[in-house]
Amino acid sequence: MREIVQPGDYSYVFSRDVAPITSVLPGETVAVYTEDAFTGRIRGPEDLPSRVLDNRLNPQTGPIYVEGAEPGDTLAVRIDAIEPTRDWAVSALIPFFGGLTGTAATAMLTDPLPERIYVYDLADGMLTCGDRLRFPWQPFLGTMGTAPPLEAVSALTPHAHGGNMDVRDTCPGNTVFLPVFVPGALFFTGDAHANQGDGELCGVALEISARATLTFDLTKGRPIAWPRIESHDRLMVVGSARPMEDAARIAYRELIDWIVADYGFDRLDAYQLLTQAGSMYVGNMVDTYYSLVAGIEKSYLGGLAG
Amino acid sequence: MREIVQPGDYSYVFSRDVAPITSVLPGETVAVYTEDAFTGRIRGPEDLPSRVLDNRLNPQTGPIYVEGAEPGDTLAVRIDAIEPTRDWAVSALIPFFGGLTGTAATAMLTDPLPERIYVYDLADGMLTCGDRLRFPWQPFLGTMGTAPPLEAVSALTPHAHGGNMDVRDTCPGNTVFLPVFVPGALFFTGDAHANQGDGELCGVALEISARATLTFDLTKGRPIAWPRIESHDRLMVVGSARPMEDAARIAYRELIDWIVADYGFDRLDAYQLLTQAGSMYVGNMVDTYYSLVAGIEKSYLGGLAG
Amino acid sequence: MREIVQPGDYSYVFSRDVAPITSVLPGETVAVYTEDAFTGRIRGPEDLPSRVLDNRLNPQTGPIYVEGAEPGDTLAVRIDAIEPTRDWAVSALIPFFGGLTGTAATAMLTDPLPERIYVYDLADGMLTCGDRLRFPWQPFLGTMGTAPPLEAVSALTPHAHGGNMDVRDTCPGNTVFLPVFVPGALFFTGDAHANQGDGELCGVALEISARATLTFDLTKGRPIAWPRIESHDRLMVVGSARPMEDAARIAYRELIDWIVADYGFDRLDAYQLLTQAGSMYVGNMVDTYYSLVAGIEKSYLGGLAG
Amino acid sequence: MREIVQPGDYSYVFSRDVAPITSVLPGETVAVYTEDAFTGRIRGPEDLPSRVLDNRLNPQTGPIYVEGAEPGDTLAVRIDAIEPTRDWAVSALIPFFGGLTGTAATAMLTDPLPERIYVYDLADGMLTCGDRLRFPWQPFLGTMGTAPPLEAVSALTPHAHGGNMDVRDTCPGNTVFLPVFVPGALFFTGDAHANQGDGELCGVALEISARATLTFDLTKGRPIAWPRIESHDRLMVVGSARPMEDAARIAYRELIDWIVADYGFDRLDAYQLLTQAGSMYVGNMVDTYYSLVAGIEKSYLGGLAG
Repeated sequence: MREIVQPGDYSYVFSRDVAPITSVLPGETVAVYTEDAFTGRIRGPEDLPSRVLDNRLNPQTGPIYVEGAEPGDTLAVRIDAIEPTRDWAVSALIPFFGGLTGTAATAMLTDPLPERIYVYDLADGMLTCGDRLRFPWQPFLGTMGTAPPLEAVSALTPHAHGGNMDVRDTCPGNTVFLPVFVPGALFFTGDAHANQGDGELCGVALEISARATLTFDLTKGRPIAWPRIESHDRLMVVGSARPMEDAARIAYRELIDWIVADYGFDRLDAYQLLTQAGSMYVGNMVDTYYSLVAGIEKSYLGGLAG
Repeated sequence: MREIVQPGDYSYVFSRDVAPITSVLPGETVAVYTEDAFTGRIRGPEDLPSRVLDNRLNPQTGPIYVEGAEPGDTLAVRIDAIEPTRDWAVSALIPFFGGLTGTAATAMLTDPLPERIYVYDLADGMLTCGDRLRFPWQPFLGTMGTAPPLEAVSALTPHAHGGNMDVRDTCPGNTVFLPVFVPGALFFTGDAHANQGDGELCGVALEISARATLTFDLTKGRPIAWPRIESHDRLMVVGSARPMEDAARIAYRELIDWIVADYGFDRLDAYQLLTQAGSMYVGNMVDTYYSLVAGIEKSYLGGLAG
Repeated sequence: MREIVQPGDYSYVFSRDVAPITSVLPGETVAVYTEDAFTGRIRGPEDLPSRVLDNRLNPQTGPIYVEGAEPGDTLAVRIDAIEPTRDWAVSALIPFFGGLTGTAATAMLTDPLPERIYVYDLADGMLTCGDRLRFPWQPFLGTMGTAPPLEAVSALTPHAHGGNMDVRDTCPGNTVFLPVFVPGALFFTGDAHANQGDGELCGVALEISARATLTFDLTKGRPIAWPRIESHDRLMVVGSARPMEDAARIAYRELIDWIVADYGFDRLDAYQLLTQAGSMYVGNMVDTYYSLVAGIEKSYLGGLAG
Repeated sequence: MREIVQPGDYSYVFSRDVAPITSVLPGETVAVYTEDAFTGRIRGPEDLPSRVLDNRLNPQTGPIYVEGAEPGDTLAVRIDAIEPTRDWAVSALIPFFGGLTGTAATAMLTDPLPERIYVYDLADGMLTCGDRLRFPWQPFLGTMGTAPPLEAVSALTPHAHGGNMDVRDTCPGNTVFLPVFVPGALFFTGDAHANQGDGELCGVALEISARATLTFDLTKGRPIAWPRIESHDRLMVVGSARPMEDAARIAYRELIDWIVADYGFDRLDAYQLLTQAGSMYVGNMVDTYYSLVAGIEKSYLGGLAG
C-alpha cells in the first residue's frame, strides 16, 4: 500500500488553492499519516497552550487529488483502519476555549478556567492518565473534508465540505461521503482522536498522531449538500452550524433527502420515519460551528423499496 | 398494587396550586393511568389537529402528593413498567409545529406543511402504519415532573422541574430524579410514547394511553438543580433550554456536579472525563424548550472512589 | 385621579389565579404605585444580592381587572406619566446573572463576576453615582402585562402576554397593546426603570419605585399575538424568545401582520417595507427570554391607504 | 482625487491571496467604485434570482494595499461620501434566503416564498417603487473589510475582519476601524445600499452601484479584535455571530475594552455604563453571521478622563 506523508508544511486551511501532495485513483487504498491537532507542540505539563500555540492549529495532511473527481460528484472515503504512531495522547484546558467557558465567540467578562495538560499513556488498547481517567482506544479522524468552492476555510471549522467535524462516526469501518466542489476534490484529513465523548466538551479530545488507511471512491454526478456517513447498519448525516438547532435541522433535512432519493420514501413519510426512529447526537459543541449527527438504522428503510 | 386514575379533569399545567389526587408513601409502588397527548381527540385521518385541538394539550395525571417530601429534597421515581391501554398509537403533522417548519417560536412567512394523521396498530410488540412505518414497542413517559416553586408551567414545557422532556430514557428500568420545590413534591406524569426517535422531529411521537408502574422514593435534604436519570449502567441529566447549546451546557454542567459530589472527582477532572467519555443526545427539538441528555457510563466513575 | 396602591402582597407571577386588587373602566385614568425590582431590599453596598435576595423578585402591582375585557380583545394602556417616589435608584452586579457572564441558563464552569452595588442619587432630573456614571431621568415601566391563558408566569419573564420586557418604549407618551386572554384582562405592572440602555446589559437597570399614570382602553374582538406599542410617530412590536433571532423574527412577523391588517399592505410588500425602513433594537439580553423591538415610522404607511 | 475602478474581475472573497489592485498612503483620500451585490445581473422583473445568480455574489472592489500597514495595526477608513453611479436600485425576494423563511442554514421542509423583484427609481434623493414603497437616499457601504489572517472568507460573510456587515453606520461622516492581519491590510469594499432597515429583513437592501470617497489612516501597534465605528457623537462596535446573542455579547464586550483602554474606565464600571446608556441594534439578521451594533454616546465618556 502506498504511504502518504505530508512532504512539506501541513495545511491549516481547506482550500482549492493548496497544491496537491499526491493523487489517488478511485478504488485505491492508501495509508495517510496525520499529525496531532497541536502539531506535537503539547507534550507535557509545561507546554501551556497560551505559550506554545499560535493560530496554526489542526494541521492537515493533503490535499490529495482524486483522479476524475469533478464538481457535482460525491467523494467516498472508506476508513479501513486507524493506527497510532506514538504511545501517548494529550488533552488540555485552553483559556477561553471549550463548552463550559466564555470563548471568543461567546464573549464574556469572566476569567478563563485554569490551563491544564492531560497526557495519556497508550498501552494495551487503553489510554490512561492518573488513577481515574482511563479510556479505550476507539479512534476516529476528527477532521476530513474537501476543498470548498470559493473560500479557504480554517482547519478548525466544520461545514458542508466536512472539515473539523469531531464526530465519532468518522471511524474505522465507516464510509464518509463528501461533496466535490473542485476538480480532484482535494481531500484533506487530520486530527486523529484516540477517543472522544459526545460534544468534545472541554474542546480537546485525546489528540494523537496516526496512520489512517483510506479507500477512495467516487459517485459521479450525484451531488450531496452535507457530509454523509454510512456504517454497516446506519445512514448518518453531519450538520454543522450555530446555534445547535440549526445543525440538527440541517442534519435531519439532508437525511430526509437521502432517504427520499435512495429509498423511495415520500418526503413527509421520511419526516415521520425519523420522528419515530431517528437518532441525533452531538459531535462537537466547541468548534466554530457545532456538529450534530442524524442517523437512521438501515433496517427501517426496507418495505416497498426493500 | 394501587391503581391511580385521574378522578376528574386532567391538569394542563405543573403547578403547586392543583389539588393532589392522591398521596403515596416513599417506597410505595403504584400504577398510574395516563391519557395520550391529545386526550384521545385524534383517532383517525378526519381528526385534523387544526379542527380538534385547542390549547388544552398534554393532559397530566396528578398531582400525586409524596408524603414527607419537602423543598430541598429529591424525588426518585423508578419506572417499573409501561403497558399500553389500547391497541393503537397516533402521530400527526400539526400546522406550524415541529422541527423542520416555521413555528410560533421561530416565526416565518412561509406556508405550513400539510396536516397529516398517522394511526399505528399495536400488535405483537410492533407499531405499524402502512407498508413502511413499523417500529418496536419501546415505551417511555414523555412527561414527568414536579410542581415548580412559583410558576404554573404548561404541560408542554420541559424545564428544571422535569415536565415535557420527551427523552427516551424515562423508560422502564430507569429511575428519574426530580427536584422537590413544594411540600409533597406534587408529581405529575403523562404523554406516554410507544416509541420515539431522538428529537421527536415532527413534534408528535407515537402517542398512546398507558398504565405506568412507578415506585416513589425520597432523598432527604440533597437538592438537585435539573432532572437526573439513572439506569443500571449510566448516569444521565436532562437539560432543557433554547438555544440547544444552552440545554447541552446545563446537562453537562449538572452531570459534572453529580460526579463531583457523589464520586469524588475534582471538578476539572470531571470536565475532562466527560470530554472523553460523555454522551449527549437530543431528546426533543420541538418543544418550548429543547431537551438534551448528557450521560456517562458508571464504569468510568470507579478508580479511587470505586 | 384614583390612586392604586398594592393592598397586600405583591404578585411575583402573571396569573389568572391572582385576585384583582381593583377594577378600571375602559377610558379610565389611574395612578399606579410600583415597588422596585428588589422590593427595596437593596439600598446600599452592604445589601449584597447573594444575601438579601430570594426567588421573590420583580414585585408586581395588580392585577387590575379591566371591565368588559374578554378573551380575544386587545387591552390598550397609555402611559401618561411616570414619576419617582423616592430620590435614588439602584443597580447591581448579581452573581451568575447578566449578559456577559455564565448564568443559570447559559451554564458554565467559570467563576461569577464580583457582586457590586451602584446606588444613584436622583436630583434635577439626573441620576448620579460617583464621578463617571450620570444619566438623565428617562423612565419606563420594565414590566407590563396581562394574565396568560393557562400558565402562571414568573414576573421575571417576558413573553406574548407582555411581562418583563425591559424595553425603553414602554414609556410616557406611548400606548402599549396587550393580548387579553382571560376575563378582565388582569393587568399587572412594576419594575420602573429610571433609565436603561439597550439590552439591560448587566441585568439590572436603574431600579426605582414609581407612580405611573395609566389610561386603559379596549379594542373589542381584534386579538393580537404579541405586545405592540404605538408612539406618536412609530408602530412597534416586542418579540421575546431565545435565541435572540427568534425574538427578532416574532417581532417583525407580528409587525407585518399589523401593517397588513391596518394599513392595507400586501404581505410581501410589507416584508419589503420593513427590509428597507424597519428598526430593530435589543430591549433585554438578560431575562429568561430576550426581548427585541421591531418598529416602523408611521410616515411610511401612507400611500394608497394614507 | 484618485479614482479606483476594479481593473479586472471583482473579488468574491476576502483573502490575503488576492493581488492588490492599487495602494494608498495613510492620509490619502480616494474615490472607489463599487458594483451592486448582484454585479448588475438583476435589472428587472424577468431577472429571477434562481435563474441569473450563481455563487459569485457580492463583488468586492479591491484589495487596496495600505502602505505601512502591518499585522497588529488598526486601519481607519473615513467615509467622506457615497454617490450613486446609476439612477435605480434593486431589491428582491430570493428563494430560501431572508429573515422570515427557511434557509440553507435554518433548514426546513417548507416551500420557499415567491421570487419577486423590486426595482426602485432614484430621483430627487428618493427611491421609489410603486405607490407605497418610497425611501430617502441614506447610503452606506454594506461590505468593508480587510484580509483575514489565514482564511479566504466569502464576501457574503461578516466577521472580525469586517466584511458583509450590512450595518447602517458604515455611512458618510463615520470612520470605520478594522483589524490589520496581513501586510498592507488589503482593504476590500462593495455592496453599497441606497438605504436599509435594521436587520435587512428579506436579505436584500436597496442595492446600487456607487462611488465612495474614502480616506485611509493607520493606528500603529494598537490592535482591535472587532470592527469599530466612530461618528461625531458615538462609539460603536460591530459583532457578527450566530446565534444573535453571541453577536451582541461580542459587540458589547469589545466596546467595554475600548472604553477601558481609551477612556480610563474600570471594566465593571464600563459594564455598568453600557447597562444604563448603551445602544444595540440589529444590522443584519440574514447573512451567514448576524451583525449587531453596540454603541455609546461620547458624552457619557467624560468625567475624570474628560
